[in-house]
Amino acid sequence: MDRPATTSRHSTPEQTWVFDFEDGNKERKDLLGGKGANLAEMVNLGMPVPPGFTITTEACRAYLVAGDDPAGLFEQVDEHLWTLEQKMGRRLGDPDDPLLVSVRSGAKFSMPGMMETVLNIGLNDVSVAGLARASGDERFAMDSYRRLLHMYGTTVLGLPGEEFSAEMDALKERRGVRLDVDLDVDDLRALVASYQEIVLRGSGRPFPQEPRDQLTGAVRAVFESWNTPRAMLYRRQERIPEDLGTAVNVQAMVYGNRGSASGSGVAFTRDPASGAPGVYGDYLVNAQGEDVVAGVRNTVSLADLAELDRPSHEALLEVMARLEQHYRDLCDIEFTIEDGHLWMLQTRVGKRTPEAAFRIASTMIDEGLIDADEALGRVTGAQLARLMFPRFDPEARRNLVATGMNASPGAAVGRAVFDSATAVAWAERGDAVILVRKETTPDDLHGMVAATGILTSRGGKTSHAAVVARGMGRTCVCGAEAIHVDAEHRQARLRNGNGDHLVIHEGDVISIDGTTGEVFIGAVPVVSSVVVRHLEGELGDPHDADAHGELVVAVSRLLNHADAVRRLEVRANADTPDDAGRARRFGAEGIGLCRTEHMFLGERRELVENLILAENEEERLAALRALLPLQRADFIDILEAMDGLPVTIRLIDPPLHEFLPDLTDLAVAVALEDERGNNDSRHHRLLDAVRRLHEQNPMLGLRGVRLGIMIPGLVRMQVRAVLEAAGERILAGGDPRPELMVPLVADERELELVHGMIAEVAAAVAAERGVEVGHLVGTMIELPRAAVTADRIARCADFFSFGTNDLTQMTWGFSRDDVESSFFSEYLDHGIFAVSPFESIDREGVGEMVRIATRLGRETNPALHIGVCGEHGGDPESIEFFEEVGVDYVSCSPFRVPVARLEAGRAALAVRDGARSAGASTA
Amino acid sequence: MDRPATTSRHSTPEQTWVFDFEDGNKERKDLLGGKGANLAEMVNLGMPVPPGFTITTEACRAYLVAGDDPAGLFEQVDEHLWTLEQKMGRRLGDPDDPLLVSVRSGAKFSMPGMMETVLNIGLNDVSVAGLARASGDERFAMDSYRRLLHMYGTTVLGLPGEEFSAEMDALKERRGVRLDVDLDVDDLRALVASYQEIVLRGSGRPFPQEPRDQLTGAVRAVFESWNTPRAMLYRRQERIPEDLGTAVNVQAMVYGNRGSASGSGVAFTRDPASGAPGVYGDYLVNAQGEDVVAGVRNTVSLADLAELDRPSHEALLEVMARLEQHYRDLCDIEFTIEDGHLWMLQTRVGKRTPEAAFRIASTMIDEGLIDADEALGRVTGAQLARLMFPRFDPEARRNLVATGMNASPGAAVGRAVFDSATAVAWAERGDAVILVRKETTPDDLHGMVAATGILTSRGGKTSHAAVVARGMGRTCVCGAEAIHVDAEHRQARLRNGNGDHLVIHEGDVISIDGTTGEVFIGAVPVVSSVVVRHLEGELGDPHDADAHGELVVAVSRLLNHADAVRRLEVRANADTPDDAGRARRFGAEGIGLCRTEHMFLGERRELVENLILAENEEERLAALRALLPLQRADFIDILEAMDGLPVTIRLIDPPLHEFLPDLTDLAVAVALEDERGNNDSRHHRLLDAVRRLHEQNPMLGLRGVRLGIMIPGLVRMQVRAVLEAAGERILAGGDPRPELMVPLVADERELELVHGMIAEVAAAVAAERGVEVGHLVGTMIELPRAAVTADRIARCADFFSFGTNDLTQMTWGFSRDDVESSFFSEYLDHGIFAVSPFESIDREGVGEMVRIATRLGRETNPALHIGVCGEHGGDPESIEFFEEVGVDYVSCSPFRVPVARLEAGRAALAVRDGARSAGASTA
Repeated sequence: MDRPATTSRHSTPEQTWVFDFEDGNKERKDLLGGKGANLAEMVNLGMPVPPGFTITTEACRAYLVAGDDPAGLFEQVDEHLWTLEQKMGRRLGDPDDPLLVSVRSGAKFSMPGMMETVLNIGLNDVSVAGLARASGDERFAMDSYRRLLHMYGTTVLGLPGEEFSAEMDALKERRGVRLDVDLDVDDLRALVASYQEIVLRGSGRPFPQEPRDQLTGAVRAVFESWNTPRAMLYRRQERIPEDLGTAVNVQAMVYGNRGSASGSGVAFTRDPASGAPGVYGDYLVNAQGEDVVAGVRNTVSLADLAELDRPSHEALLEVMARLEQHYRDLCDIEFTIEDGHLWMLQTRVGKRTPEAAFRIASTMIDEGLIDADEALGRVTGAQLARLMFPRFDPEARRNLVATGMNASPGAAVGRAVFDSATAVAWAERGDAVILVRKETTPDDLHGMVAATGILTSRGGKTSHAAVVARGMGRTCVCGAEAIHVDAEHRQARLRNGNGDHLVIHEGDVISIDGTTGEVFIGAVPVVSSVVVRHLEGELGDPHDADAHGELVVAVSRLLNHADAVRRLEVRANADTPDDAGRARRFGAEGIGLCRTEHMFLGERRELVENLILAENEEERLAALRALLPLQRADFIDILEAMDGLPVTIRLIDPPLHEFLPDLTDLAVAVALEDERGNNDSRHHRLLDAVRRLHEQNPMLGLRGVRLGIMIPGLVRMQVRAVLEAAGERILAGGDPRPELMVPLVADERELELVHGMIAEVAAAVAAERGVEVGHLVGTMIELPRAAVTADRIARCADFFSFGTNDLTQMTWGFSRDDVESSFFSEYLDHGIFAVSPFESIDREGVGEMVRIATRLGRETNPALHIGVCGEHGGDPESIEFFEEVGVDYVSCSPFRVPVARLEAGRAALAVRDGARSAGASTA
Repeated sequence: MDRPATTSRHSTPEQTWVFDFEDGNKERKDLLGGKGANLAEMVNLGMPVPPGFTITTEACRAYLVAGDDPAGLFEQVDEHLWTLEQKMGRRLGDPDDPLLVSVRSGAKFSMPGMMETVLNIGLNDVSVAGLARASGDERFAMDSYRRLLHMYGTTVLGLPGEEFSAEMDALKERRGVRLDVDLDVDDLRALVASYQEIVLRGSGRPFPQEPRDQLTGAVRAVFESWNTPRAMLYRRQERIPEDLGTAVNVQAMVYGNRGSASGSGVAFTRDPASGAPGVYGDYLVNAQGEDVVAGVRNTVSLADLAELDRPSHEALLEVMARLEQHYRDLCDIEFTIEDGHLWMLQTRVGKRTPEAAFRIASTMIDEGLIDADEALGRVTGAQLARLMFPRFDPEARRNLVATGMNASPGAAVGRAVFDSATAVAWAERGDAVILVRKETTPDDLHGMVAATGILTSRGGKTSHAAVVARGMGRTCVCGAEAIHVDAEHRQARLRNGNGDHLVIHEGDVISIDGTTGEVFIGAVPVVSSVVVRHLEGELGDPHDADAHGELVVAVSRLLNHADAVRRLEVRANADTPDDAGRARRFGAEGIGLCRTEHMFLGERRELVENLILAENEEERLAALRALLPLQRADFIDILEAMDGLPVTIRLIDPPLHEFLPDLTDLAVAVALEDERGNNDSRHHRLLDAVRRLHEQNPMLGLRGVRLGIMIPGLVRMQVRAVLEAAGERILAGGDPRPELMVPLVADERELELVHGMIAEVAAAVAAERGVEVGHLVGTMIELPRAAVTADRIARCADFFSFGTNDLTQMTWGFSRDDVESSFFSEYLDHGIFAVSPFESIDREGVGEMVRIATRLGRETNPALHIGVCGEHGGDPESIEFFEEVGVDYVSCSPFRVPVARLEAGRAALAVRDGARSAGASTA
């Protein structure tokens, strides 16, 4: 090909759509995509990278907007291709010694659903012979051509992959061989012919013989793959902007399959599983890169490479050491050795397990690569949470039979059941069960509640099963497609990795790992987390403990640093002394939510029933008097467990009928009793009460502070129990710090009224017991009205605590109970949510309520202490938001306390750095 | 008494706490209270007012804050009293010819629960003899002393009034007389002794003989009456600021009971009942003012006064004419004639009936007293609404037996029932019933729903019965204390005005007037409103019509003026062609809310059941296909009725299970069927479906746009029905203007999705029918999240319509169904609401959502058309708010359309005048 004219058809100056690798660097991911920017970086570092160039994301955007090639794009491609040909001394598709290129997409963020790679562009019916001659290996040339046809047909022309695979399978069967590599050159030549037939039939045109047409087609196909439905859905879910576009990398092919002095490999600069120092990788002699991943033969370790080719090994180690120093992080790489010459094909900051993340971050501080702040930025609360789940004993034997999506983390062992009724029945008799379904529907809800784990053969991470299981904290593996669920016959059939047919019958014990998506037959032993054992103080000196000592040290170190830098306090939601104790051991600085209604359950339910059935004031007071000492005892224990730390006690919140039997069940029972002539008058009275108290929408009924105003005796009893308990603690030498929290306040007058009752009781208790109990009075902010009138409410509140669960329900107008099982999976699919707003706070809607209330509350009461006690208090994304908004503390379940501490530290640094860079930009 | 020193004890300059009547005027109500300001105004007009002075509201506030007399107050009172004594030529409590004074409270707004009046201050055991001598009437003097002791004892000393009445009753019984006036001087002397005994016993001190002590005590008592619980509650309910305080008026007594040339009267400058021109009043010869109101003897008319005392009559007419000219409004007055000399004791702008309000406003335009804008300010939507209620035929005979509170307006006739079960049973067989209860509880809800009217013997306007009845639009009279309800014996006993004993048995027909609070035995004929008949075009030329012609002319004139000045459009909520037609006749400029789910009821319920029970897509589509022509026919009729005007059609909103039987009822029925061996499989299938669709909180469940996203076929069917109907109207030469409204949107993406479906259907219909149907697409704003993200939502909306019912429910976090019958009356009592937020919009909370959404929506879409279609659209208070916020239209029930037109006009003027005065203050 002649060098193209350097002036374009148009006289207007053109945008630069194409950059040689030499002209980029790793900071230019916006323009060059991740892959292109990192290739450019390696080129600039003088590393051996096959030459090539990157077509920018701007070109992609322009193409997608106009629906046509941007002016000058392919002229620029021609220029850069010419330069590439000069460097390589070969021409694209040359009949004698063709230059081949790969075309690979590379967006700023890696994105499933986009076209990935087309290798061997430049081959055609003529140049394949040239490649055979030049390489001296006709089979290799034909194999490359076969691959090109397959990849081009599926990814560029959009033909179904199954047609190609079926042809290949049929051929192998005819030839009686198991592996592709056992096919000879004639087989492959026949395959090429069949593939060309598939292309002609499927696309209506023959496979393009012109190499430039192949290249142009591949580039446009990469552009267009930006808008596949799967990619669009992914972007919606991950909140990746729609208009970024992808870059396209065109790179000279190098061959790891040119004999025994060639090969391909992948490597990590450290162990990405454990985080242990030292390089780690796989190498396959005489192979192309894709073979390494596909596992066609057994790979060897990098140590073995040193034996095979010491100079290349040393060169590789040097490159990896430089990359890690340069990126100051774990890098993963792809490389090829062609005839003893090392080529780097890709690098990026490597993915790693949670364990590795902590160990690497900690080790890199010691190595002086990063400081503690940066190390904290390298680990996440989600990773720490995963380290805290119980998991299957890694040492134990296990029988892996299938893998699905890791939909909801945890390790669950139980008997397989195939319908919800059985799940409920077996769970009631004490069996742990795993509910196995093709897919779940709202009808399966009671079965999902009863099960310890859920396994489905269909549906992804936003399927009904996945969404509901995450919502209720059940372990779930979904979309395990190898499993054929046959509910009618109460069994599931599957073929394991070895091709054996297996059947899981109802009652068989299985184990599922919601963290990895693995499914095992039989019981796999579960071990508790070493991190939890450490936090619980069960390990002694972690260095002596076991193989996980390094991990525990790293976690402690980063948690301590998070504590040092965080502004947010971390409290726990705890209703029992046990929970309170654990929360304290996990680093909680107080209780942010102690729900008192939990103290009305169990044996005390009858006392609550008496309260409700009371027919006069005397009976009502008697019921309350019976509850008082029980509540007081509860509070004494909790205040003792949290001595010296604040304990926020929420007055009773749920509607009273929650303590009564279900209306429908009771109505049926009473009707049947009557029918049978067993008239039970207490049942009738109970049914009357349930009917009277029944509400269409209990979430929107007589609950929270409304109960306190309707039944002042109830509030007074609770307040008295708290203050008497605190008084006893003081007399016993303790330091109780009770904070009374009023739920569901919508108007300042409600809080004033309850405030008045509290003051009266406090005065009475002080007079009776002779001890003044210091206490704060505050309110939940969980109704939109409370948020927008927070300036008034703050006048009579010592503190606010955002009840983000209810606030989410009221702001969106849906109740969690009702919607997670009905339309949430649909909403996630449509991208209306990226994630359930009950999991991570909805910044635009609910978050706006939080911002409004925080601003208004502090306007009238600058001393107001503001916290969050919804489940969002333990969610990493939400914690970052709360840091930005400037609340004072978050409160979460005891198990989430370490996660919240870590994320609060990270959030403080993120806000600081955000503020710093914002400051810099205005300076 | 000597003139007091003019310098005070303190050398610091003192505030002026006291003003002679000469120094005030009617604009100074803030400082002097209403009564004092109007007395001052009359003095300045040169009218004959007994001299006196006013102690300011500031003095009251200072007294209440300090808990003690403000410095210098009583020194200033002494100075003004000295001046008064000089004017009158008598000294307070002088033993020979005592000056007596009245002490009367007078806040800015008149307020029940405050101390009203103490007359005859200055009398004691000595001066009573002086008064007897000076007046020549010992009985009169003793009677005055008796009154002072009674009034002072109850209002100043807080003793129970019953003790005084009991003493009086016992005396009358002993003396065998019926009226107070039949007691002679000795009787009264004995009574004075008994009363002094009561005072001594009750207060622990003798009645103060020192006139200055009497005065001081009365003034302080008026101050303190500001803070009685009843006054405080009233202020909370009426949103009157707590810190206004009351003024106190001290005025020389004049006597209408000094013989036949004396007397007292009350008068209005026009008829306050009909609004007819001409003075109107009552006069009682030889009597004090209080006797006129108490009705001790029959009064005579003002015309009779002309016969008795022509000069005084002429003087009175002249004063009244001047007052009306001066106040440019109906005035009411109190006057006394003492020995042929006219004295004015009070004036104020007079209360009037709704009918009078309209007639007076209209007549005063003709008389040139006020302009049309001002006339519009003199009438209210609430008055117009009362004129539109059906009412009892004023000509009909009626048997009034009791009077209670006018708790919820209307005229109801029905059979008395004494429990809810009977109410339901009788209503089901077709009887109109009035539910008669001592008081209602949430258990009575189904009975209240079944009844046409509710009558209680206990509780006020915020009682359970009153709140719930207003909420559901039932006529209600409550707190009719004369009625003794005996539910056990299914009867009510009472004594009518003549003292006759009566019994109302179950089944007896009674009539109750919720507008007046009257209760009648027997059926009183109900007549429809003349205003409604006029608006419906049933009257012809109103001038010819009947006695109400003047009223109809006045209403039309003011409605037309409101139309001329209003900015807000008025639309109607109408689901049927009949409603649409009526709305149009009542002046609606379109339909703001047409609910489509009402079209799924009745015979079509089975089709909806089929849709829900459909087991596959085919059955589902078949059900939808069956619904399509029915919906289309509905829309054709409505679009025809509203031809040329916009019709806003809301897509289906309620959860589908609302169309299915109640879960509990069905479960009981199925259980009993099974028990009896009648297994009905359709019932079982239905029960399964009801269970599956059952929601804990249907208000927060699968409804609104969520249904549209889950069942796209349903939305497409509805949109198709609307657009096909509009297409047919166009082909028939009509001008249909459909607007499609999407309910319950929380996120812009939901609206985008439905917008996409609508666009597809519109394109298909246009292609099939060959006619383009213009239509708008908009959304309800009824979730707090929609309000705070309105900027995003507005990008794909042509219009917003605030669904203030749901917005109120979500913002406050309570559902109307559940709370109005449970805690609303308690909340009104506590002053948490002044009025139910479902009746008048809650400006601080829900109103803030409206403000936020309006601002944000217009930020991104300045062309956005914004309306309101909750019930607040027809509420006067709320309309004023919507005018302030600047929405474009309100939509309300057809009957409320005239009210909304009137209030929209008033609101426009109020905002204009507010803006003008605000402008003036900054100019």
